[in-house]
Amino acid sequence: MVHQPGEIDLAALKDESARARELDRAHVFHSWSAQRLIDPPTVARAHGSTVIDGEGREFLDFSSQLVNTNIGHQHPAVVQAIKDQADVLCTISPATVNAARSEAARLITERTPAGLDHVFFTNGGADANEHAIRMARLHTGRTKVLSRYRSYHGGTQTAVNVTGDPRRWENETGESGVVHFFGPFLYRSEFHATTEAEEAERALQHLRRTIELEGPATIAAIILESIPGTAGIMVPSPEYMQGVRALCDEHGIVLIADEVMAGFGRSGKWFAFEHFDIVPDLITFAKGVNSGYVPLGGVILSDAIFETFAERVYPGGLTYSGHPLACAAAVATINAMADEGMIEHAAHLGETIIGPRLRQIAENSKHVGEVRGIGAFWAIELVWDKESKEPLAPYGGGSPEVASVVAALKEHGVIPFNNYHRLHVVPPINISEEDLERGLGVFEKVLTDLDFPR
Amino acid sequence: MVHQPGEIDLAALKDESARARELDRAHVFHSWSAQRLIDPPTVARAHGSTVIDGEGREFLDFSSQLVNTNIGHQHPAVVQAIKDQADVLCTISPATVNAARSEAARLITERTPAGLDHVFFTNGGADANEHAIRMARLHTGRTKVLSRYRSYHGGTQTAVNVTGDPRRWENETGESGVVHFFGPFLYRSEFHATTEAEEAERALQHLRRTIELEGPATIAAIILESIPGTAGIMVPSPEYMQGVRALCDEHGIVLIADEVMAGFGRSGKWFAFEHFDIVPDLITFAKGVNSGYVPLGGVILSDAIFETFAERVYPGGLTYSGHPLACAAAVATINAMADEGMIEHAAHLGETIIGPRLRQIAENSKHVGEVRGIGAFWAIELVWDKESKEPLAPYGGGSPEVASVVAALKEHGVIPFNNYHRLHVVPPINISEEDLERGLGVFEKVLTDLDFPR
Repeated sequence: MVHQPGEIDLAALKDESARARELDRAHVFHSWSAQRLIDPPTVARAHGSTVIDGEGREFLDFSSQLVNTNIGHQHPAVVQAIKDQADVLCTISPATVNAARSEAARLITERTPAGLDHVFFTNGGADANEHAIRMARLHTGRTKVLSRYRSYHGGTQTAVNVTGDPRRWENETGESGVVHFFGPFLYRSEFHATTEAEEAERALQHLRRTIELEGPATIAAIILESIPGTAGIMVPSPEYMQGVRALCDEHGIVLIADEVMAGFGRSGKWFAFEHFDIVPDLITFAKGVNSGYVPLGGVILSDAIFETFAERVYPGGLTYSGHPLACAAAVATINAMADEGMIEHAAHLGETIIGPRLRQIAENSKHVGEVRGIGAFWAIELVWDKESKEPLAPYGGGSPEVASVVAALKEHGVIPFNNYHRLHVVPPINISEEDLERGLGVFEKVLTDLDFPR
Repeated sequence: MVHQPGEIDLAALKDESARARELDRAHVFHSWSAQRLIDPPTVARAHGSTVIDGEGREFLDFSSQLVNTNIGHQHPAVVQAIKDQADVLCTISPATVNAARSEAARLITERTPAGLDHVFFTNGGADANEHAIRMARLHTGRTKVLSRYRSYHGGTQTAVNVTGDPRRWENETGESGVVHFFGPFLYRSEFHATTEAEEAERALQHLRRTIELEGPATIAAIILESIPGTAGIMVPSPEYMQGVRALCDEHGIVLIADEVMAGFGRSGKWFAFEHFDIVPDLITFAKGVNSGYVPLGGVILSDAIFETFAERVYPGGLTYSGHPLACAAAVATINAMADEGMIEHAAHLGETIIGPRLRQIAENSKHVGEVRGIGAFWAIELVWDKESKEPLAPYGGGSPEVASVVAALKEHGVIPFNNYHRLHVVPPINISEEDLERGLGVFEKVLTDLDFPR
């Protein structure tokens, strides 16, 4: 499923890349960075699961960039759809009807449970979560939002404030009404649990207590990544998620499933909540919906929440809501995923290749404390030792040890996704078994012999 | 400068549009709307200043959609640039160097004053303003943000809370630290002024008092549209803007110029603040930077604010920051604007055609209270009578009278931009003089003979 590019003129590529680097350092301000302390790599080309740097070197992309290129780079059907739509109509106001937007909404809602039939399109995941929270507040007439520690919901002010990771810390200015609770995470249990069942039960009890003590009638929404992504890919049990759904029902709280990273095939299902046999009230998405080929996100609304805004104005919007070029890319992406069986492929890869091989690596590596995941969505806990489980880098930071592991993976031609002490194995969901085995071989080689002195 | 499409198959267009309408009503949730009370028009095709509806009817687009298609629809050089970039690389992580992003940053900062040399790219105007406010808060260590009544800064939570229009009202949940003040607006003076000079002087005195009473050391930023857009295109005087700049300097307050609507040629300059001989600390942009062909926005940072994040991590980001496809569209747009002299064209149209003709219409129409603007950026105040200046629709709402004017313009083939009681004349800045005269003829015809009974 890897799509080969034409021949590359290496000298021209190097010239272009040198110029790009010079201008980048002079004029580009980068996300989540201290601008003078970074040295970003150049990416000049990419195809399938491969990216090519400014020197023409090839790497296997086991990060899917920011876990968004679910169908890999430069899928020819999606590239063609973008070019075709560009010829017809690049942009149009959201206050119109447009064929690409209509078809994208149809294909998305075709894949949701009954009763989730309408899509509000945004530019990405952050504004999708901002709007979902607004819808929940106006639908319930309540203000407060509960979310998990160890979560990420986006970079804009409200989205980053519901986020439960260090990126929130410096952004808690001017925002109120957000409460964080602990979710189930057996490996680092907050609840002194020893089994998944016990962890789920105790985490639910904790959530029930939090709701009671915050005041059920003050809580508009609980927002959860169906499977927390950057925070560590802790796959919850169906019992936990069903318990959350029941608590929401009991108290009239809107359940927002954040599927920005977990959705569109990443977990081996169209949406990750399908693993838990629950139906959310609002679903947010971005990334995988069109692999980020054109910026796109959105909120899928339950019929009940849609009805709230049937004859009352929804006080939110954006110039590029339902952008034709972005929607055309989503149509082509969803069709390619379906036609090429990518969802099933991702599930198969997780069960038969990634899971077994990572578990074997964990057994043979002193510094791998746990591996966990599903589909093409896996995390590796790097620890000082398996008994203490002490992370190999502190929460919210890095360490020379983790940096050396990441560097070794890259030296061997694989780009991992790294968050603090964790490595994530999140390649394109349509990666070939051959490329996957090759990349996992690099993980095995690098991780197996690790032995950091304290 | 209008670019003709190929022949349209009318029967196919109608079929496609009927299907699009059916799916839209079933599955698309629209911005700023009561979903069952709207009947959005279909736009099937567009070229230059013309849009074509689902029945194949042509309209002159005097709205530039949401005042974003500054270079009109389907400019061939920008369409080609999008297609070329799609062939090379659609998307890549913001943590990389990419040629399209670098070149877009170069072309943008080439057009800013010295000392504004770095660009943080976002997906649109709302998140640009969210990030600008964050940068100001972290740079100053202060929380409060001052903004104008009669302003619009975007739809996400912080952006809509600094907004000074009714779209904020339902969104004031969970946000604090925002204070609104009155800006200069002689036609509806808050300050009982009778001349522009007096209005500017009194508005500055009011702002100084507001700063003093809010506490100068608590205020991170003043955010202003260089020329307020949707709120009414009230072009401030250089004296006012220079006074705001001086107040910011006096108190160490960051001045954010919101150029999302006013920038990239709309006012007859690259940036509207150039009319006032001031230099902001942060500039936000979106819309015109690539006419919205691909979603893109951004923040341009002063060197001083850049230095704050040179060795300290900026706690903000987004998956699609510096998106290659969006940046390639910006590169082609800026080059087309420069090559085709569009900025000068917009200034010329405002001075020699739009201004004179609108002033003539105002003289001859009972219901036009004032016309004002600059470049391709003009507002018409519809009032019950010129003495009372009572708006023809209430603030935040519509009226049958305004609706009938809008309908009449559309019947005659022109799409205006309408906000409450105002009509805005905001065509593509590269509209031909012929199309402009034709559209203004329709405004003249519809407005001159208006006579609504009370």
